[in-house]
Amino acid sequence: MMTTASNRAPVRVGVVGLGRLGKRHAENLAYRVPGAALVAACSPVEDELAWAGEALPAPRLYKDYAALLADRDVDAVWLVTPSALHAQQIVDALRAGKHVFCEKPLSLDLAECERVLAEAERHPHLQATIGFMRRFDPSYRDAFEKIEAGVIGRPFMVRSQTTDKNDPDGFFVRFAPTSGGIFLDCTVHDIDVARWLLGKPRARRVFASGTIALHEGLREFGDVDNGVAICEFEDGRLAMFYASRTMAHGNDSGSEVIGTAGALSIGHNPRSNRVEITDATGIRNECTPTFFDRFEDAFLYEARAFVAAVQGGASAGATLADALEATRIGSALRQSLQTGQAVTL
Amino acid sequence: MMTTASNRAPVRVGVVGLGRLGKRHAENLAYRVPGAALVAACSPVEDELAWAGEALPAPRLYKDYAALLADRDVDAVWLVTPSALHAQQIVDALRAGKHVFCEKPLSLDLAECERVLAEAERHPHLQATIGFMRRFDPSYRDAFEKIEAGVIGRPFMVRSQTTDKNDPDGFFVRFAPTSGGIFLDCTVHDIDVARWLLGKPRARRVFASGTIALHEGLREFGDVDNGVAICEFEDGRLAMFYASRTMAHGNDSGSEVIGTAGALSIGHNPRSNRVEITDATGIRNECTPTFFDRFEDAFLYEARAFVAAVQGGASAGATLADALEATRIGSALRQSLQTGQAVTL
Amino acid sequence: MMTTASNRAPVRVGVVGLGRLGKRHAENLAYRVPGAALVAACSPVEDELAWAGEALPAPRLYKDYAALLADRDVDAVWLVTPSALHAQQIVDALRAGKHVFCEKPLSLDLAECERVLAEAERHPHLQATIGFMRRFDPSYRDAFEKIEAGVIGRPFMVRSQTTDKNDPDGFFVRFAPTSGGIFLDCTVHDIDVARWLLGKPRARRVFASGTIALHEGLREFGDVDNGVAICEFEDGRLAMFYASRTMAHGNDSGSEVIGTAGALSIGHNPRSNRVEITDATGIRNECTPTFFDRFEDAFLYEARAFVAAVQGGASAGATLADALEATRIGSALRQSLQTGQAVTL
Amino acid sequence: MMTTASNRAPVRVGVVGLGRLGKRHAENLAYRVPGAALVAACSPVEDELAWAGEALPAPRLYKDYAALLADRDVDAVWLVTPSALHAQQIVDALRAGKHVFCEKPLSLDLAECERVLAEAERHPHLQATIGFMRRFDPSYRDAFEKIEAGVIGRPFMVRSQTTDKNDPDGFFVRFAPTSGGIFLDCTVHDIDVARWLLGKPRARRVFASGTIALHEGLREFGDVDNGVAICEFEDGRLAMFYASRTMAHGNDSGSEVIGTAGALSIGHNPRSNRVEITDATGIRNECTPTFFDRFEDAFLYEARAFVAAVQGGASAGATLADALEATRIGSALRQSLQTGQAVTL
Repeated sequence: MMTTASNRAPVRVGVVGLGRLGKRHAENLAYRVPGAALVAACSPVEDELAWAGEALPAPRLYKDYAALLADRDVDAVWLVTPSALHAQQIVDALRAGKHVFCEKPLSLDLAECERVLAEAERHPHLQATIGFMRRFDPSYRDAFEKIEAGVIGRPFMVRSQTTDKNDPDGFFVRFAPTSGGIFLDCTVHDIDVARWLLGKPRARRVFASGTIALHEGLREFGDVDNGVAICEFEDGRLAMFYASRTMAHGNDSGSEVIGTAGALSIGHNPRSNRVEITDATGIRNECTPTFFDRFEDAFLYEARAFVAAVQGGASAGATLADALEATRIGSALRQSLQTGQAVTL
Repeated sequence: MMTTASNRAPVRVGVVGLGRLGKRHAENLAYRVPGAALVAACSPVEDELAWAGEALPAPRLYKDYAALLADRDVDAVWLVTPSALHAQQIVDALRAGKHVFCEKPLSLDLAECERVLAEAERHPHLQATIGFMRRFDPSYRDAFEKIEAGVIGRPFMVRSQTTDKNDPDGFFVRFAPTSGGIFLDCTVHDIDVARWLLGKPRARRVFASGTIALHEGLREFGDVDNGVAICEFEDGRLAMFYASRTMAHGNDSGSEVIGTAGALSIGHNPRSNRVEITDATGIRNECTPTFFDRFEDAFLYEARAFVAAVQGGASAGATLADALEATRIGSALRQSLQTGQAVTL
Repeated sequence: MMTTASNRAPVRVGVVGLGRLGKRHAENLAYRVPGAALVAACSPVEDELAWAGEALPAPRLYKDYAALLADRDVDAVWLVTPSALHAQQIVDALRAGKHVFCEKPLSLDLAECERVLAEAERHPHLQATIGFMRRFDPSYRDAFEKIEAGVIGRPFMVRSQTTDKNDPDGFFVRFAPTSGGIFLDCTVHDIDVARWLLGKPRARRVFASGTIALHEGLREFGDVDNGVAICEFEDGRLAMFYASRTMAHGNDSGSEVIGTAGALSIGHNPRSNRVEITDATGIRNECTPTFFDRFEDAFLYEARAFVAAVQGGASAGATLADALEATRIGSALRQSLQTGQAVTL
Repeated sequence: MMTTASNRAPVRVGVVGLGRLGKRHAENLAYRVPGAALVAACSPVEDELAWAGEALPAPRLYKDYAALLADRDVDAVWLVTPSALHAQQIVDALRAGKHVFCEKPLSLDLAECERVLAEAERHPHLQATIGFMRRFDPSYRDAFEKIEAGVIGRPFMVRSQTTDKNDPDGFFVRFAPTSGGIFLDCTVHDIDVARWLLGKPRARRVFASGTIALHEGLREFGDVDNGVAICEFEDGRLAMFYASRTMAHGNDSGSEVIGTAGALSIGHNPRSNRVEITDATGIRNECTPTFFDRFEDAFLYEARAFVAAVQGGASAGATLADALEATRIGSALRQSLQTGQAVTL
């Protein structure tokens, strides 16, 4: 798991956005990624910059993204910013000659996605990766390798879910106007997983449905707190998706790949650790409360892989084209939810 | 689990159809159901009658169903016959004044289903039950009771699957012309489970898809060996279904019910027993090979419940109306598979 | 699982002792064992005989054991009586020409055990079996067959436990003066399992210890509510035992066999059924509350096997010699507990 | 999990011994422990020093331990050296004014252990910790905290095991002359775990046994490849231990704590990750092959805790007194194995 130090020059990274997930990325880049140097941090929020000054190893601090891009001692930017900003920020980073890692999604808008792809084609020497971190989770990675090795024969179906512990405060309801809805916000991970594990087939037709179990506030935005979907791919492969905001037990995100000679299940029972509790109620394990807990290692390995790619290794994460396809399918799911009809892509 | 003997007169049963499943029912009724007396057996197949003469406690043997119905010392008939015969045989049994248990499905034809319901209304004193045995599986029963007790809050979604171990000989391909397709043959169990566990909501819209993973012979019949479906109910409840004929590991039929305060999973990991095997490949359990193995107890408890109902207890199994609704939804799934469009009921 | 009816004459059984376990045996013999006819029942307790008259299919009722033995239409007696009576009752049954099944233990006294063996040698045509029911539990049976098939190489060690749910009323404390202590009452099952799964090696040396976790009333009898032990066999094989009366979750009796190429675990996690409950406390399953629930099937298969043996099949259960050896080892464990020293056999 | 950087001066560490485990410690200290600076490395082996020069961030390299101790810019030494050297090296480090972390065991010799304790008492301002890493495994830590919180009532018994995957090359056989035997080499971890989880009771009497399942070469050293033991503590608490060198499936080290209101199991089923494989052999997970894989996180958190303690935080790991007690019990187990008798401490 541990990569030894490289003799190459370190990749100098500037992190942009220091919310909860941004902080996590920043700490990884600062302390846990050999070959990376976290040299700059950018946020419009005073408190976040103050945190960076204390918790990180003396990065240069920027309130303004343009100023960060002008810093010639930054090789790569790491975007953990609101989704609506992603596309333009990636374009700006590429134009400034920076490698760029950007949290998912690329954009909720297909035209925007394509604009970014077009820009990236003009900078083939720059890494541009979208953060679908499940590709770096050790268990997902193991499943991917087992599929490659033929362990389950020909994989023809994926069942995948992104389900969050219910937040009684309904934070995501306030976020609903800009989230793109449950399929573009949550299921986009499952779409990427399905395409990745099935060999990147193109989608042909989708159908989605959903219900509001608890959060009535979503209704005015046409959104749901539990969504289900079927996705047909061009070669007859299939995917079933489930997304939920209302789980009682924790973040229970996982996938299953079914093949002609067997199946692989990733993440069934989101055990928080190796402890089993036996008492009068039975035998139980506790669950990972949030995706931070579940994918802690994945975020770290994702950062290591990006740095290795910048240093000349193979690109490993989701490409901009993968992200575009995920947005395309996610948008069709949203359309199907709203119309009640299957949508042909 | 063991019901004590009743002082009531035994229910005298005639079993009709002595294929593999018929034999199982006959043995249960003969030896394991207090209150039942297996007094007659009917089959057009010489070998099957010979088996009945040896293996069962001296039943009267009939080659002809009408002759069995004329036997005044038979109180109830137990139909384990080809699906296409079910509707008329039930009607005939009711007209002959017999209680009737019939294996699923009631009929693949909705008009036939309704004809049987109309006949049954004329015989309110006769039991008429369709054999959806999962309702009698101890684990399904436990889940049902936990839901009733409010353990998971308001249940709003069911995920359910009927998946068989792959039969390399493809028996079911030869059966395809009359099976009604994967949804009416397999998913009909999941439909009944979903309605039962969700409080019998009516279906509003369905979408289905599928693929042929291994058995190309199904293509000419418009059938698939792996099918997926979404079912929307009128009150916003949801179901997702999966049916497969191509599992590598065994019969893996189970369900999950998700509610606002928790979820119940029934049958995940179809352990064949309580043994775990540890060796160089890891730690594993073997799986129930067939639905006979998985639902052995359910078939027994189903028979006990029917006999108890005939003796004056509460009816416990799926009613004819439940079976009609299962056929209605299953037919819509087949139509959706064939058209590629959502179907509104 | 279902044995078909035999053309042989039924084995006419008289059950002796109708406490909770006796009732269970009686119902099995009456309704679930093809080839058996429960023709007589014996108990000194009026209520128990009344129960037999109602719940069983018209057996002849006896208050006196000698009268039952005089009944010439009884082929076999089924002893579910207090342990202290077992030895003499077996001897009497054999002298009366009856096959005999007796619940464990054969006797707490080694000389008594040997007296029974001597008597049995004079009646080689009569079955005499002690009820170590785990040998008939489907999972233990599967493990035994896997070991025979070489799945784990050479088995060299067994870890086995008999652990009961705590009874706050401490029934077993009142039973302590006659139970023989935790090792002769509980661990005797594990001793038999270990010998059976390891190929019947002889014990060489044992060490036992224990503690009182909850039931101080045991102290005056030199007994404990949690006991542990190590047993060395002559060929270097080993066993570790654990017995408890104070489990919070249920009856958790199981075993593990370790071999040179793998291991088998039987009964780890005593799931009560196939339901998993997911809620804010995590993911859990409920546990089998009592040994009745855990070994319900084993008691049934044990009865079927005995009847088949009487009808001429192979003997399958624990022999009197096995029961003697179990008592010998159990007695040594008790001695070790009391002296604090290892005991050489 | 992530500790933020401290404003305190970094703890300057010199690692001593760069075998497989030494390398692991060195990489953790170099790259994953905020607050630590790996400034020196010491090994008599040329290749290991060469590795340090490449893989670590430019430490000063020493072939000689005394030279390292003379380095005034080293605050703490990290001993991953042969067991026989531990005691003297710790004494030397303390006399040189260095904090010291030392891999287990403190010493196989009780007098040596006491000599180190006496020396440490003269340097109360210096940290001296023995590396019982399980105390830092997140699952063990969680269990410890649940016990403290009363989740299982009063804990009265521990079952704990250290079992390694069989090494067909039998490396540990060559190591047998100096390892101290299976109890001092392996079970010492379980002894420490039991004492830690039970509140540090003193041992009163022990009994041990063992067998050679595969590695006959151990016989001449009086050692075994599978050992079992019972340990009685002064207050009636109990422990059962199992150690094996011959597992087929991997490193399967774990523990169970039983209390009056429940039990906690730590590490049952040593899953290598979150993947389940379903195929014709059943449903399985792969296992952690070695203790490196199983306790990777524990080694890291152990290092972080030591550094935090040096910086003024609370000491968290096993003290020298804990290590002395573990050696005392382990020695008694060895004596019991050799004499066949219980040993009173």
